[in-house]
Amino acid sequence: MPDILHKVDIRSSPNDTYRALTTLEGLAGWWTRTTQGNPNAGGTIGFRFGPHGGFDMKVLELEPAKRVLWQVVDGPDEWIGTKVSFDLRSDGDFTVVLFKHQGWKEPVEFMHHCSTKWATYLLSMRSLLESGQGAPYPNDVHISARGD
Amino acid sequence: MPDILHKVDIRSSPNDTYRALTTLEGLAGWWTRTTQGNPNAGGTIGFRFGPHGGFDMKVLELEPAKRVLWQVVDGPDEWIGTKVSFDLRSDGDFTVVLFKHQGWKEPVEFMHHCSTKWATYLLSMRSLLESGQGAPYPNDVHISARGD
Repeated sequence: MPDILHKVDIRSSPNDTYRALTTLEGLAGWWTRTTQGNPNAGGTIGFRFGPHGGFDMKVLELEPAKRVLWQVVDGPDEWIGTKVSFDLRSDGDFTVVLFKHQGWKEPVEFMHHCSTKWATYLLSMRSLLESGQGAPYPNDVHISARGD
Repeated sequence: MPDILHKVDIRSSPNDTYRALTTLEGLAGWWTRTTQGNPNAGGTIGFRFGPHGGFDMKVLELEPAKRVLWQVVDGPDEWIGTKVSFDLRSDGDFTVVLFKHQGWKEPVEFMHHCSTKWATYLLSMRSLLESGQGAPYPNDVHISARGD
């Protein structure tokens, strides 16, 4: 099955990077301002994008400063059951973030869109951590004619 | 085998988008300023990125305003033999660009890096076509600690 893969190096500590992935405030700072729910292990986090819908993620694994794994429990059909992971490691002044969105059944056009869009959100996370200012929805980078 | 997939919608005609993918001037405007060679079918184009090396692409298919297919004939080991395609279609005022970099043997860390980096270059191409100003190397978006 095809996966979406990304990597970004962030001038930030693994602890701070982990916090951006595991607190409502952190997530709202780079993915979508409308982030609610329980970001602890076993909890469910709801991410909403206004008219574009959203996703509910169950937090499957949390390993401080190292790894975050979610599973999509609600959202677009193509996303349900897929898993999203962030693996972190230290590299000098940087944290290396390896991202994977796995479990897509088919390499549909929507998967192409989500791959590009994930890149923009990971760069938003980097911007949040390096400059204090991310670009979460509704201030995100639009890559489609329909405005998402 | 895993593929890198992306999609970006560009407020541009398929003809203009195709030109950005099939002329040295177009390619130098969004990917790397150091683009040389023969961009016609059967030709080989060399893309160079200063100390970060580069790629030679053989042009396998050209279908005006619709499709571009390259095969990597020189560059990093992981890239050699892989294929890069751009499929274009019109959607109102936009051209939908579906991108695929296929034939990777393994989902190595370098593939994660290249996936994110391709997203930034496709957004550079969009910027070139929509505003006249892309962000080709050496003015590209750096996503790694080593400066590429």
